[in-house]
Amino acid sequence: MTVGAVVYTEAGVDTYDGADLERARDADGTTWVRAWDATPGELDRVASVFGIHHLSVEDIQRDIRPKTEEFSSHTFVLVKTASLRTGETTFREELRTQQIGLFIGRDWLVTMSTVGTDAVESVWRSIQRGDVRTLRLGPDFAAYRVIDRIVDEYFVVLDETEDLIEEIEDGVLAGPSEEVLVALNDVRRDLLSVRKVLWPTREAAAILARGDPDYVQPSTEKYYRDVYDHLVQLVDLTETYRDLARGARDIYLNSLSQSTNEVMKTLTVVATILLPLTFIVGIYGMNFSGGPYNMPELGWRFGYPAVMFGMASVTAILVAYFRQQRWL
Amino acid sequence: MTVGAVVYTEAGVDTYDGADLERARDADGTTWVRAWDATPGELDRVASVFGIHHLSVEDIQRDIRPKTEEFSSHTFVLVKTASLRTGETTFREELRTQQIGLFIGRDWLVTMSTVGTDAVESVWRSIQRGDVRTLRLGPDFAAYRVIDRIVDEYFVVLDETEDLIEEIEDGVLAGPSEEVLVALNDVRRDLLSVRKVLWPTREAAAILARGDPDYVQPSTEKYYRDVYDHLVQLVDLTETYRDLARGARDIYLNSLSQSTNEVMKTLTVVATILLPLTFIVGIYGMNFSGGPYNMPELGWRFGYPAVMFGMASVTAILVAYFRQQRWL
Amino acid sequence: MTVGAVVYTEAGVDTYDGADLERARDADGTTWVRAWDATPGELDRVASVFGIHHLSVEDIQRDIRPKTEEFSSHTFVLVKTASLRTGETTFREELRTQQIGLFIGRDWLVTMSTVGTDAVESVWRSIQRGDVRTLRLGPDFAAYRVIDRIVDEYFVVLDETEDLIEEIEDGVLAGPSEEVLVALNDVRRDLLSVRKVLWPTREAAAILARGDPDYVQPSTEKYYRDVYDHLVQLVDLTETYRDLARGARDIYLNSLSQSTNEVMKTLTVVATILLPLTFIVGIYGMNFSGGPYNMPELGWRFGYPAVMFGMASVTAILVAYFRQQRWL
Amino acid sequence: MTVGAVVYTEAGVDTYDGADLERARDADGTTWVRAWDATPGELDRVASVFGIHHLSVEDIQRDIRPKTEEFSSHTFVLVKTASLRTGETTFREELRTQQIGLFIGRDWLVTMSTVGTDAVESVWRSIQRGDVRTLRLGPDFAAYRVIDRIVDEYFVVLDETEDLIEEIEDGVLAGPSEEVLVALNDVRRDLLSVRKVLWPTREAAAILARGDPDYVQPSTEKYYRDVYDHLVQLVDLTETYRDLARGARDIYLNSLSQSTNEVMKTLTVVATILLPLTFIVGIYGMNFSGGPYNMPELGWRFGYPAVMFGMASVTAILVAYFRQQRWL
Amino acid sequence: MTVGAVVYTEAGVDTYDGADLERARDADGTTWVRAWDATPGELDRVASVFGIHHLSVEDIQRDIRPKTEEFSSHTFVLVKTASLRTGETTFREELRTQQIGLFIGRDWLVTMSTVGTDAVESVWRSIQRGDVRTLRLGPDFAAYRVIDRIVDEYFVVLDETEDLIEEIEDGVLAGPSEEVLVALNDVRRDLLSVRKVLWPTREAAAILARGDPDYVQPSTEKYYRDVYDHLVQLVDLTETYRDLARGARDIYLNSLSQSTNEVMKTLTVVATILLPLTFIVGIYGMNFSGGPYNMPELGWRFGYPAVMFGMASVTAILVAYFRQQRWL
Ligand SMILES: [Mg+2]
Ligand SMILES: [Mg+2]
Ligand SMILES: [Mg+2]
Ligand SMILES: [Mg+2]
Ligand SMILES: [Mg+2]
Ligand SMILES: [Mg+2]
Ligand SMILES: [Mg+2]
Ligand SMILES: [Mg+2]
Ligand SMILES: [Mg+2]
Ligand SMILES: [Mg+2]
Ligand SMILES: [Mg+2]
Ligand SMILES: [Mg+2]
Ligand SMILES: [Mg+2]
Ligand SMILES: [Mg+2]
Ligand SMILES: [Mg+2]
Ligand SMILES: [Mg+2]
Ligand SMILES: [Mg+2]
Ligand SMILES: [Mg+2]
Ligand SMILES: [Mg+2]
Ligand SMILES: [Mg+2]
Ligand SMILES: [Mg+2]
Ligand SMILES: [Mg+2]
Ligand SMILES: [Mg+2]
Ligand SMILES: [Mg+2]
Ligand SMILES: [Mg+2]
Ligand SMILES: [Mg+2]
Ligand SMILES: [Mg+2]
Ligand SMILES: [Mg+2]
Ligand SMILES: [Mg+2]
Ligand SMILES: [Mg+2]
Ligand SMILES: [Mg+2]
Repeated sequence: MTVGAVVYTEAGVDTYDGADLERARDADGTTWVRAWDATPGELDRVASVFGIHHLSVEDIQRDIRPKTEEFSSHTFVLVKTASLRTGETTFREELRTQQIGLFIGRDWLVTMSTVGTDAVESVWRSIQRGDVRTLRLGPDFAAYRVIDRIVDEYFVVLDETEDLIEEIEDGVLAGPSEEVLVALNDVRRDLLSVRKVLWPTREAAAILARGDPDYVQPSTEKYYRDVYDHLVQLVDLTETYRDLARGARDIYLNSLSQSTNEVMKTLTVVATILLPLTFIVGIYGMNFSGGPYNMPELGWRFGYPAVMFGMASVTAILVAYFRQQRWL
Repeated sequence: MTVGAVVYTEAGVDTYDGADLERARDADGTTWVRAWDATPGELDRVASVFGIHHLSVEDIQRDIRPKTEEFSSHTFVLVKTASLRTGETTFREELRTQQIGLFIGRDWLVTMSTVGTDAVESVWRSIQRGDVRTLRLGPDFAAYRVIDRIVDEYFVVLDETEDLIEEIEDGVLAGPSEEVLVALNDVRRDLLSVRKVLWPTREAAAILARGDPDYVQPSTEKYYRDVYDHLVQLVDLTETYRDLARGARDIYLNSLSQSTNEVMKTLTVVATILLPLTFIVGIYGMNFSGGPYNMPELGWRFGYPAVMFGMASVTAILVAYFRQQRWL
Repeated sequence: MTVGAVVYTEAGVDTYDGADLERARDADGTTWVRAWDATPGELDRVASVFGIHHLSVEDIQRDIRPKTEEFSSHTFVLVKTASLRTGETTFREELRTQQIGLFIGRDWLVTMSTVGTDAVESVWRSIQRGDVRTLRLGPDFAAYRVIDRIVDEYFVVLDETEDLIEEIEDGVLAGPSEEVLVALNDVRRDLLSVRKVLWPTREAAAILARGDPDYVQPSTEKYYRDVYDHLVQLVDLTETYRDLARGARDIYLNSLSQSTNEVMKTLTVVATILLPLTFIVGIYGMNFSGGPYNMPELGWRFGYPAVMFGMASVTAILVAYFRQQRWL
Repeated sequence: MTVGAVVYTEAGVDTYDGADLERARDADGTTWVRAWDATPGELDRVASVFGIHHLSVEDIQRDIRPKTEEFSSHTFVLVKTASLRTGETTFREELRTQQIGLFIGRDWLVTMSTVGTDAVESVWRSIQRGDVRTLRLGPDFAAYRVIDRIVDEYFVVLDETEDLIEEIEDGVLAGPSEEVLVALNDVRRDLLSVRKVLWPTREAAAILARGDPDYVQPSTEKYYRDVYDHLVQLVDLTETYRDLARGARDIYLNSLSQSTNEVMKTLTVVATILLPLTFIVGIYGMNFSGGPYNMPELGWRFGYPAVMFGMASVTAILVAYFRQQRWL
Repeated sequence: MTVGAVVYTEAGVDTYDGADLERARDADGTTWVRAWDATPGELDRVASVFGIHHLSVEDIQRDIRPKTEEFSSHTFVLVKTASLRTGETTFREELRTQQIGLFIGRDWLVTMSTVGTDAVESVWRSIQRGDVRTLRLGPDFAAYRVIDRIVDEYFVVLDETEDLIEEIEDGVLAGPSEEVLVALNDVRRDLLSVRKVLWPTREAAAILARGDPDYVQPSTEKYYRDVYDHLVQLVDLTETYRDLARGARDIYLNSLSQSTNEVMKTLTVVATILLPLTFIVGIYGMNFSGGPYNMPELGWRFGYPAVMFGMASVTAILVAYFRQQRWL
């Protein structure tokens, strides 16, 4: 059974069958109809009972931005649940979202989704368990509780992103590798996706927090303001993490430049020391002969030790120079 | 014949000749005049029958931004169809757009374009096939259906762009080559062009969705709101793809730096091992002679094996060092 | 003569001398006074006849942003003509602009500039030729025609900029050279200058298109809206060209990095092949002697061919390796 | 005792116990209740006495952005104290903030925080010392004084950041090292955090400065405007420092590129001088013999000096060339 | 004497002593009190005579952003004079600003600053010289004249900045050096500082130009609009100069990359020519002997000339190749 209904007052909770929606709608008290993990046919049936526009039903089945839209008999709120899942792309994980539609009428609430979600389930159960505050307040409060739960999921998503950034920061210090840059792109992409959902959700919550819709009561506005504050904070977090990712990227790119610089220094030091020495030994490998001016050194008693000492001196001077220049 | 007219009511559809526009305009029911693949003369003729300003007719023949403009007797909507075509520049493909003008009056609709387009054609045919909903609702709904079709074309364009980005991402991993950067510029340019059209189209749809124009009925507003949502989503997509392109570019540029770094490491390792060895063999190629201090090693029984062993040791130490430094 | 006046109605056109401004002002019909290539004294004289504030006259003589300003008896529009001229800086060409002031009163128009300009001249002549539409409509329409001509000049300027970008794109593919970057800076600077003029011109046109000023009649608003659309399109073009310039710059910088990468690969390949070979021939250049363990290879019958063959093998292996690595 | 109360008039100050909040609330004069370093239970107790919403109390215990929120009986201002502390991350120091809630009623002020803070303490004491101006003016002025103190703390934080930037600028000139980049990231992160708090604090102050809330009297608005000015100045400072950090980063990255450039020049100079010399001595190390055309130089009387002189000449020419090219 | 007063009408100018402020205030005509290079005590004294809030007096003594603030009896305008001075930082020059407060009442003007400034002095003198227009118009016109003078100082500052940019552009073409980057940072910093002052000054002038304040008369609005135009133009100039600085920086960084590229090409050319030659001479330095297959070339009649010719050929081919590749 994927369509169900409850009618509740402070006095208690009645459960209705998905086939009895008209009776549930007309009963005294707050009516909540939940179409959960529902087929298009079930969604259309619920929509026709409560006068919900077919375009709104379509929105729930598509990847539309979160929004609050007002109709004459109800307010339509479209939100998205969020989780990081292993995706189909080369990225390690990516943001998966699912649409949930909330329709807030005078004394009724309809929630619709084509999947099952924890956020709706947990509030549904708390009503059946007889949560006093929710029973006392109307459909706008129940809707608030669902939205509040959904917004909390984004904190979980951003916590996971933070862990990933910390891993990357460790990887960056260990040394430059292409994997780090791929992971950084991954995180940046996730943050962009989260931000793209959070931003319109914030706007949707702002409309509710201002109490513009007819069926949001003044006493519930404060609760939507609280949701709004959390969404502002979430947007702030995505920016902070984006900056951390940018910082890690800077250090990564710099460590590559620094590595190249050091490799070149090593090469230059080695070449600057050994090329002169090789030249010197090359001199005494020449085959000049036939006269007093032609390489008399070769016959000197201490010729060989003298050359060896000369080369050691050249080496020592060059090493000292490079030490001073901090190339060694 | 590139100018035609239909007059439709829920009862049925009458077709009029392009020469009979005044009769079609004055007939009962919704009149739709279509100037399709039309010459400037035909456009002017239609305009004079429906009191359309000559500046609007000019707009349809120029590369003006999409817009919604209100006149006293009608609302003028200028939109652009989109497709990626092989262009005249060095880029592989580029965005081609074509203007379509829609003039929505109280009980008439005029669509004008200097080319033939699928979007107008398909709605035109569905009316002639007797599509119930379109026949029942007025000219603002028929206009919505044309615009909706045109907006859907942008999803096709962005799908093609996504494929191109995926190709580029594969190319980037295969190794740095200038082609990749050219392709990335290509994509960036396409996304910019798409965005430049989508943004004002979104504004034009917003005006219709707010129901400001007199001839957009309250019951049609919801449909334009739906178009607006799709345009918002399209703008979001262009941003997401732009970020993917930027990510691919980062990986590309980095792989070039990394390649240079590795090339330098190879050179440095080779030089650091072989320059000392060449120096050593150079020493024993010197021609010192004439005394016990001059290169006595050359005469030692195991001189040659000792030098060879010494050089092998130097090599082994350097290789071990570079292994440890992860240069090998 | 740099100050002249015409008074026109649908019936015809009368020409007045610059000394007769008061009579021209008071004559029936639309009065247009043109101060063209005028001295400060002439400007002041015209201003005093029509009650124009001396600060407005000063604005025309200074490099002030385009603007629309309303006074009690007239609307003041300051626009700028544009052309690319060889400048005094090191840049090849730079944007030159000249102020034109238009003062639109109830039944009069004053245009002022300290230079002569084609835009004013051509509209002036078309009135003297008896252009029907202009004669019939009032001073706000004549002002529109001047502004429209001036805006068209920016399309010419941007066309020239586009040609320059195309030249640069060709230059970039030919190979990295500092000239290309200088030319890119040049273009970027021109685009920035154009944009700085276009942006406030757009705002000035928007005020006229909204019909806010008292002396812009409802029937003329559409024409100013058309000018506004062209200005929006021009701003779009500057952004498109700026992006093309940025793309060319990316390819340029990348081709430099790629060139450095390839130079390093060449060096590394050469060194990696020849340093080992030089080492090997160095070994057999050593002078060890005096025992069976000291370089017996030197005496082998096929010692020399064996070494040569060994070196050829080393070379072949290294070349094959570098081929596989795509370094060759 | 972490909850206390004072009731003050121009005549004097009475102190009340935390258990006596109702009496303090109802007494004549301005009542200030301070919950300081308080437990959740204490906060709830104070809230229930003054009709403060439980969501506001929750806000004080969470990391919510600064804000001004109006309730029917009071205005709620949430601000954050700031200090740089050694953090748990790898960064040297990071911004630590703590929430302080101020509730401004008609004749009462409640301040709440879960920690003890200097800003509240110092104003609290000045009242007990009988500060005339504060005693005369109402709860909105006392709230101003607390907020003013808190805003001053940000000047201290930014002063410390400036010192850090100066240290970094010195480090950059000393030579490229990875530490500098880490420190720069550190500063950038701090500035971002400060800015994230300052921006909404500025908005919260703007609401008070405009005098919108009922319990901010016209005579106090000027004081909040002063706070607002300081917040604008603080935001300006964060931008200036961010730019200084960016400038230091540019110089740092450039000095690395310049270092690589110089290393390469050294290598090229050394190789360009010594490779030809080594080649020359290699020539005269060849063992050709057996005819007049085979290396007659080896037997010339001044062969060796001539070669040595030739090599010295080559060296001198190359050194002169590199000097001229500024590579030496 | 640092506090003085004048009372002026079209008829003439009376000068009052700083001790006579009350009499000057109450005299017929426009009263201008100037506290110039004044001590805090003097400022407080003037403030108490004219009912100026002590927070405004504090603002003049602090580094607060320019602003226009309205009080019931007067309008307070805070502006800043600007000059480039040798600063305490490592930068060559930096922007120095000084606060000037203008208080515009119904028939009085108070100007306050803790320093002496040319702008105030020159207007003060022109009144004493009996400048007709200033004497005829009220305190809002005198305030305009002071502000106009102050705004003109920014043109001088930006002219100096332009000269500095031109110097840098010359330096960039001369070759890469760290000094250039430091100078560029210097300019960027100056431009940022100027912009930070100009932006709020523009807003302050906009308020006066709109004529919102009670004591700005309609006839003076035009003058403030003129000041506003100049401020807009100044902001435009800072952006143009910032772009020039960015262009110079691009060319600088590129010339460094290009230099590195050329250094590497030189090295590669040298190594690619000389390593093979050195290898070849190494071959004929080997000591193989003992059979017909061992280095028979050494005994050939033209062995040596043949090798020399072979090496010359290799060199010629490589040089031709590098010429073709444009590496030489
Ligand atoms: Mg992921
Ligand atoms: Mg929550
Ligand atoms: Mg964590
Ligand atoms: Mg939005
Ligand atoms: Mg918003
Ligand atoms: Mg909260
Ligand atoms: Mg047009
Ligand atoms: Mg393309
Ligand atoms: Mg659609
Ligand atoms: Mg695909
Ligand atoms: Mg726009
Ligand atoms: Mg918009
Ligand atoms: Mg939809
Ligand atoms: Mg300008
Ligand atoms: Mg130019
Ligand atoms: Mg035009
Ligand atoms: Mg062209
Ligand atoms: Mg603007
Ligand atoms: Mg820190
Ligand atoms: Mg303060
Ligand atoms: Mg300091
Ligand atoms: Mg904000
Ligand atoms: Mg703001
Ligand atoms: Mg202040
Ligand atoms: Mg300076
Ligand atoms: Mg001026
Ligand atoms: Mg100059
Ligand atoms: Mg501002
Ligand atoms: Mg502004
Ligand atoms: Mg002016
Ligand atoms: Mg580089």
